[in-house]
Amino acid sequence: MSTDSERDPDTDAEPTIAEEACFEAGIKFGTLYHQFAGTPVSPDSAASLERAMEASIENQPHCSDVTVDVRTDELEAELADSAADYTELTGRFLEVEIVVDYEGAEVVTRMAMEDGYPLMRVESIRKRNPEA
Amino acid sequence: MSTDSERDPDTDAEPTIAEEACFEAGIKFGTLYHQFAGTPVSPDSAASLERAMEASIENQPHCSDVTVDVRTDELEAELADSAADYTELTGRFLEVEIVVDYEGAEVVTRMAMEDGYPLMRVESIRKRNPEA
Amino acid sequence: MSTDSERDPDTDAEPTIAEEACFEAGIKFGTLYHQFAGTPVSPDSAASLERAMEASIENQPHCSDVTVDVRTDELEAELADSAADYTELTGRFLEVEIVVDYEGAEVVTRMAMEDGYPLMRVESIRKRNPEA
Amino acid sequence: MSTDSERDPDTDAEPTIAEEACFEAGIKFGTLYHQFAGTPVSPDSAASLERAMEASIENQPHCSDVTVDVRTDELEAELADSAADYTELTGRFLEVEIVVDYEGAEVVTRMAMEDGYPLMRVESIRKRNPEA
Repeated sequence: MSTDSERDPDTDAEPTIAEEACFEAGIKFGTLYHQFAGTPVSPDSAASLERAMEASIENQPHCSDVTVDVRTDELEAELADSAADYTELTGRFLEVEIVVDYEGAEVVTRMAMEDGYPLMRVESIRKRNPEA
Repeated sequence: MSTDSERDPDTDAEPTIAEEACFEAGIKFGTLYHQFAGTPVSPDSAASLERAMEASIENQPHCSDVTVDVRTDELEAELADSAADYTELTGRFLEVEIVVDYEGAEVVTRMAMEDGYPLMRVESIRKRNPEA
Repeated sequence: MSTDSERDPDTDAEPTIAEEACFEAGIKFGTLYHQFAGTPVSPDSAASLERAMEASIENQPHCSDVTVDVRTDELEAELADSAADYTELTGRFLEVEIVVDYEGAEVVTRMAMEDGYPLMRVESIRKRNPEA
Repeated sequence: MSTDSERDPDTDAEPTIAEEACFEAGIKFGTLYHQFAGTPVSPDSAASLERAMEASIENQPHCSDVTVDVRTDELEAELADSAADYTELTGRFLEVEIVVDYEGAEVVTRMAMEDGYPLMRVESIRKRNPEA
């Protein structure tokens, strides 16, 4: 691919364990969001979707815990203004926490609405491995 | 869009109720397959995924019943040959029945493997409404 | 699966060719919508997404033509009210026509917004095969 | 959500800029893979899918460059053994490079097959911002 992405030993570093752990956590968030965005969801089906999202992402490597909360209050508010009794899953109906444990670095990441956008961010990094 | 798709009254008919019911059933199958294909799945997470797939598709209009069977025997056989403990959901791990009830026409549809491909087909149509 | 879906010869019919053609058209619509809903899209990237959606769905069996129109006017209107410069693809940004040709039955289907919802429907059926 | 994920000031750190950059890069990879896995693809439609994947992911924040290569040699080899003329996009048909530029930290990430699995990894980090 592009030749300008070859590593330059003067300026470019290999990732640390903590940086790799954050990359892994990001993969899980992108997976969770884009695998399930668009799923038909209603207040009644929200709980089964939460469980399936958690269990499927916990399959991925280094993923120690996933907690998905479908905000049924937001769902109900949207459906109250609508002729439909279900909608499509999207970020404003979701609160998610994903914990990745990668070679001694534990990364806690979250998604929640901020200023009208679903924001994903790294909450904290715990380096049990001194080399992380 | 393309002008050659205008209806010609000599050759082109409006759909019957039964034809519309079959169209609705097809939508549900395409939705189910392409919403969930690619989901990380293991023998342990299969049951929660089955429930979420059923409940989400049953939200769609005219969809009276969805039964999803993730073939854990096939999952286990694939994982036995592999270094991984999960894989991606795809057609060869799925058996699905979807029943659509549309204005008095009940359509039963199925997906199962046939000659190595996941085949979706209309099993039967019950026309309770004489106009269907 | 459920035994009550066995075909009763007194009340249940096998599908006609035209009914199967409508089922096939529905599969294409469900596929197109749920494969691509959620894709990050902007006025600049809309054209490449249209082409990819058309070409990927035209791969499916019996699918003779797909025309996708991402409504960039709607995209621009949404982004004008927003701090972001892209959004997620969903039904209100789409107009789609799909033509299926199945054993002599040609089915023209469309998706467009109606009363605030993306409505998919069968526009017309042309039965060139007298048995359809 | 779970209280045990509160940050402990003795052991838990806020992420560095480089760690956040790696998290952002991971999000893009999870998005790309799980948005597009399952898409019907053939040697003829591969190029339009490559362009759409690149343009859609480049919409995401901090994403400076995406290069997608659908391995048409692998596609052709699979289809040669098959009665079908298309298949579903999955990792073994993909080589991807994603570059993220986040507050002065440039992260180069890649996905390619390794030992039969599509492996995503951080290739290098260039910290132009001394605080990264």
